[in-house]
Amino acid sequence: MATPAEFLNYIDSNKDAFFARLRDAVAIPSVSGDPARRDDVLRMGDYLESQLKAYGVETKRAELGEQVSEGKTLKLPPLVLGRIGNDPGKKTILIYGHFDVQPAAKSDGWNTEPFELTHDSKSGRLYGRGSTDDKGPILGWVNVLQAHHELQKPLPVNMRFCFEGMEESGSEGLDDMIYAEVKKGKDSWFHGVDAVCISDNYWLNTRTPCLTYGLRGIAYYKLHISGPGADLHSGAFGRMVHEPMTDLIHLMGKLVDTDGRILVPGVDDMVAPPNEEEKAIYNKLDYSIEDVEESVGAPIALSSDKAAVLMGRMRSSSLSLHGIEGAFYGVGAKTVIPATVCGKFSIRLVPPQTPENVTPLVQRYLDEEFKKLGSKNKMSCEYYHGGRPWVEDYKHWNYQAAHRATQAIYKQDPDYTREGGSIPVTLTFAEALGVNVLLIPMGRSDDGAHSTNEKLDVSNYLEGTKLLGSYLYEVQALTKA
Amino acid sequence: MATPAEFLNYIDSNKDAFFARLRDAVAIPSVSGDPARRDDVLRMGDYLESQLKAYGVETKRAELGEQVSEGKTLKLPPLVLGRIGNDPGKKTILIYGHFDVQPAAKSDGWNTEPFELTHDSKSGRLYGRGSTDDKGPILGWVNVLQAHHELQKPLPVNMRFCFEGMEESGSEGLDDMIYAEVKKGKDSWFHGVDAVCISDNYWLNTRTPCLTYGLRGIAYYKLHISGPGADLHSGAFGRMVHEPMTDLIHLMGKLVDTDGRILVPGVDDMVAPPNEEEKAIYNKLDYSIEDVEESVGAPIALSSDKAAVLMGRMRSSSLSLHGIEGAFYGVGAKTVIPATVCGKFSIRLVPPQTPENVTPLVQRYLDEEFKKLGSKNKMSCEYYHGGRPWVEDYKHWNYQAAHRATQAIYKQDPDYTREGGSIPVTLTFAEALGVNVLLIPMGRSDDGAHSTNEKLDVSNYLEGTKLLGSYLYEVQALTKA
Repeated sequence: MATPAEFLNYIDSNKDAFFARLRDAVAIPSVSGDPARRDDVLRMGDYLESQLKAYGVETKRAELGEQVSEGKTLKLPPLVLGRIGNDPGKKTILIYGHFDVQPAAKSDGWNTEPFELTHDSKSGRLYGRGSTDDKGPILGWVNVLQAHHELQKPLPVNMRFCFEGMEESGSEGLDDMIYAEVKKGKDSWFHGVDAVCISDNYWLNTRTPCLTYGLRGIAYYKLHISGPGADLHSGAFGRMVHEPMTDLIHLMGKLVDTDGRILVPGVDDMVAPPNEEEKAIYNKLDYSIEDVEESVGAPIALSSDKAAVLMGRMRSSSLSLHGIEGAFYGVGAKTVIPATVCGKFSIRLVPPQTPENVTPLVQRYLDEEFKKLGSKNKMSCEYYHGGRPWVEDYKHWNYQAAHRATQAIYKQDPDYTREGGSIPVTLTFAEALGVNVLLIPMGRSDDGAHSTNEKLDVSNYLEGTKLLGSYLYEVQALTKA
Repeated sequence: MATPAEFLNYIDSNKDAFFARLRDAVAIPSVSGDPARRDDVLRMGDYLESQLKAYGVETKRAELGEQVSEGKTLKLPPLVLGRIGNDPGKKTILIYGHFDVQPAAKSDGWNTEPFELTHDSKSGRLYGRGSTDDKGPILGWVNVLQAHHELQKPLPVNMRFCFEGMEESGSEGLDDMIYAEVKKGKDSWFHGVDAVCISDNYWLNTRTPCLTYGLRGIAYYKLHISGPGADLHSGAFGRMVHEPMTDLIHLMGKLVDTDGRILVPGVDDMVAPPNEEEKAIYNKLDYSIEDVEESVGAPIALSSDKAAVLMGRMRSSSLSLHGIEGAFYGVGAKTVIPATVCGKFSIRLVPPQTPENVTPLVQRYLDEEFKKLGSKNKMSCEYYHGGRPWVEDYKHWNYQAAHRATQAIYKQDPDYTREGGSIPVTLTFAEALGVNVLLIPMGRSDDGAHSTNEKLDVSNYLEGTKLLGSYLYEVQALTKA
């Protein structure tokens, strides 16, 4: 245990101040997706910057320019960059987080005002938009800074901060900015960074802290089929012409089977089967089939083997059929033969799959299968967008430090997880800086990020703050010469 | 040629009055689907009734009660019933038509004001909403009445009229009303009807008049698949659970093949192959593959054999996949796993298929195929609505009369067609009255009913009026003792 008791005690003694901080932040409705709220996003950036400054962090804003949304030109919220410490004897850790939030309205089904932090002392929960995603975690870092500032203790590492205000809206401008900053070399605020730490995901369950070392990538496709010049009446033309919907449904049915196997030859085969060490990780995870089925609300898991189901999310690619554009989608009955339809599907990717190596397989396969159909309609499969997967070396000191911190604060080993979704900035930092990136979540699986009644448990906020601070001490302890 | 020259000359001499009549009718925007236009539908019924009365027809209104539309209670437009002639030595012919129209707005792409009849003398066309569907044809009958009234000639048959104002909006209340009227026996305004004549469809092309002796029925299905309690994120749950969309796409792909063959066992088999006489009808039809491909706007006919393609519409069942409710249908990309999806498809029916005998085959097949998928989701196939097909005896005197009238007026044999769609009232009259029903279109295939720039050719309006009158004389000639 490398963490001074002084720091831990400070957290326990000052929780009211930490609640107040989260209350102030939640009260700023920094919804990046709502042009009418853009000023609030800027205000939230100002608030965060002032907090960093108050605890001795040097800051600067990195302007990201403008965006056009619904015909209006809007200023993009600048990145809030910060740096504190420049001791060559210490490691330098870059912290990323975001200060914007998803939209929320009481009328969506919230039990409390979403932009008023509500402390339910009975359940020990802090309700409010952004409580867990991602204001709680970024303020956890501010709490750590406050503690050291007020205790007049030097931080155990040099710290760098990169806080973003557009994460919920596609992180516009972020990647270019990161690469541009890195390019500055010695003048870069990211110069000398030894590792990155991001707290913007969740535990696998409600019980066990975890460290996350992998994210799936994605390749999103649009499968276009067109035939007639306009929609046709199925009475007048049914069984006279090749119907685009028939072709599309047949092709979409050839992509994935009921058990989730990807039928595009070569895609699943790219991924090597798990070795014994890996299997052990999945078997050890504190997660059951019941957890899966509870979280999806139905007994529809693909298997009764827990490790198999978890590997489905974490180390397998998956193909989901999302829907069809151009066909009838209303509630009633319409006897249309749609003229042009577009099937939407995506493949979640794991190493070594990338959009670049998977897309030709998908397109060639669909071309072949469409030829087999013998239809006179026209087909094309468009790669729409995507991102590569990321898997980190979880034996690196960055993870070891987080592991030890978890043991120290939570008195248990963390789960080692890979997420099924994407956090694109993770890959950007990994590639731009060439250093180890750690995902260390503060919240639980049931926090309801992006949903109604988003919450952060008091214990996750306070122990989470301790965890983040403790992680810094463990980095120092592990990397001391 | 049984038709007196006096009648035919009258039509030629009074065309301006007939144009004025159609102009007056088109000027009343009797859009039954628009609650704000309901008074115009009622006004159009009044106008029609006054026209009938002016030429000696006894009329009555059959009230159909009320409907609730968008939370508003609306009076249903009453049927306008009429009768003229009661000569036991003459046949009694019941005429059906409708005086309501589809919505239309200039901004939809009309070149002229839709509710102002525009006579383009260069092309010989009368543009306006309702010109061909169905105001032109019903006023054709009024023109025939006017001619006989003013010439003081008795009509060659007893006539009965049933004009409806809700045809474009599901004919609410019509069937019940017809059955109720028939039930009155000797007091029924339909008492003694020997045959029915309906002019509410179109020629197969723009060149050759036709008589229509068949309509397909329909059975509309909703294929429900549900799994998770709510939509899932494909990153978080892809390849962990059975996805409803995957199951649905697989099942929908098992319904019909690219060439239009229905894959539900037993459905196509119900229909006997065409005999030589029937084949001859299709080979004789004035219609080419080029006509099909021109009307659909693409070279996508299922076959290069004209008879095969026409039989696809006219004497085969067809299965069309219309769309999916509950899945993503927008323009962009969404990585959702929809929780509950509903596939919409329908089967067009030909004798001896009925919704009653086809539905169990569809449901049993889908149950079996779903079991084969091995999914843990829930599936049900709901029969949503439908109607039986209709095929008439085209050797009946009713058709023979129309055949001779066509030869007399158009100097050519009519095509004998079956329509791929439904006109439900046809079946209702056939079943309620137990008499032969003839469909004798006035307009051409390119009239654009339900579309922008709806038109009726001047020649179709005037020669069509002659055709209707001539048909009555041929009925008399053919059925005289």
